[in-house]
Amino acid sequence: MKGNSYLEAGVDTNAADKTVELIGHEARSTYVPGVLAGVGPFSGLFELKGYKEPVISSSTDGVGTKLLVAIALGRRRSIGIDLVHLCVNDVITSGAQPLFFLDYIAAGVLVPEQVVEVVKGIAEACRGVGCALVGGETAEMPGVYRAGHFDLAGFVVGVVERSDLIDGTAIEKGDVLVGIPSSGIHTNGLSLARKVFGVGISEDDEGRAREREILEQWYPQLGRTLGDELLEPHRSYWPLLKPHLPLIKGMAHISGGGLVGNVPRVLPKGLAASFARGSWSVPPIFSLIQERGRIPQPEMYRTFNMGIGMVLVCTAADAGVICHEIPGASRIGEVVEEKDGRTEFV
Amino acid sequence: MKGNSYLEAGVDTNAADKTVELIGHEARSTYVPGVLAGVGPFSGLFELKGYKEPVISSSTDGVGTKLLVAIALGRRRSIGIDLVHLCVNDVITSGAQPLFFLDYIAAGVLVPEQVVEVVKGIAEACRGVGCALVGGETAEMPGVYRAGHFDLAGFVVGVVERSDLIDGTAIEKGDVLVGIPSSGIHTNGLSLARKVFGVGISEDDEGRAREREILEQWYPQLGRTLGDELLEPHRSYWPLLKPHLPLIKGMAHISGGGLVGNVPRVLPKGLAASFARGSWSVPPIFSLIQERGRIPQPEMYRTFNMGIGMVLVCTAADAGVICHEIPGASRIGEVVEEKDGRTEFV
Repeated sequence: MKGNSYLEAGVDTNAADKTVELIGHEARSTYVPGVLAGVGPFSGLFELKGYKEPVISSSTDGVGTKLLVAIALGRRRSIGIDLVHLCVNDVITSGAQPLFFLDYIAAGVLVPEQVVEVVKGIAEACRGVGCALVGGETAEMPGVYRAGHFDLAGFVVGVVERSDLIDGTAIEKGDVLVGIPSSGIHTNGLSLARKVFGVGISEDDEGRAREREILEQWYPQLGRTLGDELLEPHRSYWPLLKPHLPLIKGMAHISGGGLVGNVPRVLPKGLAASFARGSWSVPPIFSLIQERGRIPQPEMYRTFNMGIGMVLVCTAADAGVICHEIPGASRIGEVVEEKDGRTEFV
Repeated sequence: MKGNSYLEAGVDTNAADKTVELIGHEARSTYVPGVLAGVGPFSGLFELKGYKEPVISSSTDGVGTKLLVAIALGRRRSIGIDLVHLCVNDVITSGAQPLFFLDYIAAGVLVPEQVVEVVKGIAEACRGVGCALVGGETAEMPGVYRAGHFDLAGFVVGVVERSDLIDGTAIEKGDVLVGIPSSGIHTNGLSLARKVFGVGISEDDEGRAREREILEQWYPQLGRTLGDELLEPHRSYWPLLKPHLPLIKGMAHISGGGLVGNVPRVLPKGLAASFARGSWSVPPIFSLIQERGRIPQPEMYRTFNMGIGMVLVCTAADAGVICHEIPGASRIGEVVEEKDGRTEFV
């Protein structure tokens, strides 16, 4: 009888080694000053320079079931971009400069080419934001994931000078809510969208072929296929917002929970967000989902970003500057006294 | 901690609120000076004080298929402890003080009680290490995970003064390898161990009942059941090593790849690790796995920690001090010139 080995137990360390080599190349392409490369093989090292009272801002997140759309279409690069942008958009809400990123990728069976495709997307997004990919874990976990499935988690660390911290405390009644457009569905509400269209559900070849057809259907109102629309990566707001940080009193990343669930989180007690309905145009993907799924309006606003990916709170005067400088930015509401709840639509 | 994912995924909102509340309670129990609590709802904030040239050390990891043993026995707290310790043991190899931790928990269906149990373990371990649980993500991902399964990823950030960085550059021929005992299998080689014993594989009730029986079997050589032995949490080395950092030239966390795969990673080029066979006692769990699985010796050393969870490199004189001060620490080899490979057993 042959002895057991790690390989026979479902863990292929050669495949893992090959993957690590390819990933290393991508990671190095993201390095910025501060990265201590090749030092300390067990951790990522980043030298912090030029801060008097540094506050470290961190966040972790995953792309949710947008993965299932990506898997259905065999596209993995854009999901890597999503992962970075959604984490970075959380961490910058405190005014923090993103410094570095780490990723966790797990699958039942690791296919090096597929992992590398995800990491290529991660590295591309990191370069765009100017944050370094300093570490990650690639885990082969036979028995945990369904065949062909994998999961992704991202971790980002940023830094902000204590005196520049954006913490919402300066927000007052009469301040303006500035909305910055999203690029589409981003990474929230995909479970509902998938249910409406019937994708990312099938477990047999026939079902998967049908799902592919659904995703490859061209929609005139979208100007592209459903799959292209759903997989459009989460937008990165850092390059747009960085020059305007001193004007921003509070910043809400519109992820799970939508405008209703996220904007109140940055407001001081006793204040509420009053959104002016019709002050921005809701992208066609949301109308399409709503009509197909016969979803009530409030449910739409609780689940999806409805076209606004980031909300800034600032004075009316500063809002004028920001709306002039940032393409697509517009005044979508104001801060009011809290009456019946923490949000209202007028 | 964010809690949107629960609501969005259609989990009973009362249960979800309760979970978020319980998680928040656990997180607050870990707070150390530096945590800016209640500020910036989208990210965890930590104020860094007292460092002249801070280097931030970071790491991410997962517990691998140790999860399947935990799931088979319905125990989730110890796996949370594993998650923290294995990440922390990576980050301290550079001499960094662990500052804060974030966790990512994903499942097909989230059961609040189960999530809280994992988080209790995470918080317990964070308190033990003195690092704060400042954030996390709990994701419900129907269709990605097999029924009853979940995954965990951890992310830790530490800091070290530039001048105190442990980077292995001072290591030279004749330096001593000091081994610190592991508490058992830790979180590596579980896929092989599970295959040998036939656990964490079954998909039906009958199979699961059989697996439970296997795990509940008492072994005289272990002095406990197989399940208790396999689920023994990954040991935390920080409290032991912190007082001795100035004596340590290099530090290797013995995780995937064993002694053979990890110790050479901290050695300068041209040097190799020479281990003295028999200089430490290999715990009975490894002999049991080896005999049951008829696994060749080299495969054992490539896959498991074989009783050594951390290896320190220091001068012979300093090794004497460390072996005297740290319970169980012993000289297990030395640094030699590289000849045929980067490790040898003599």
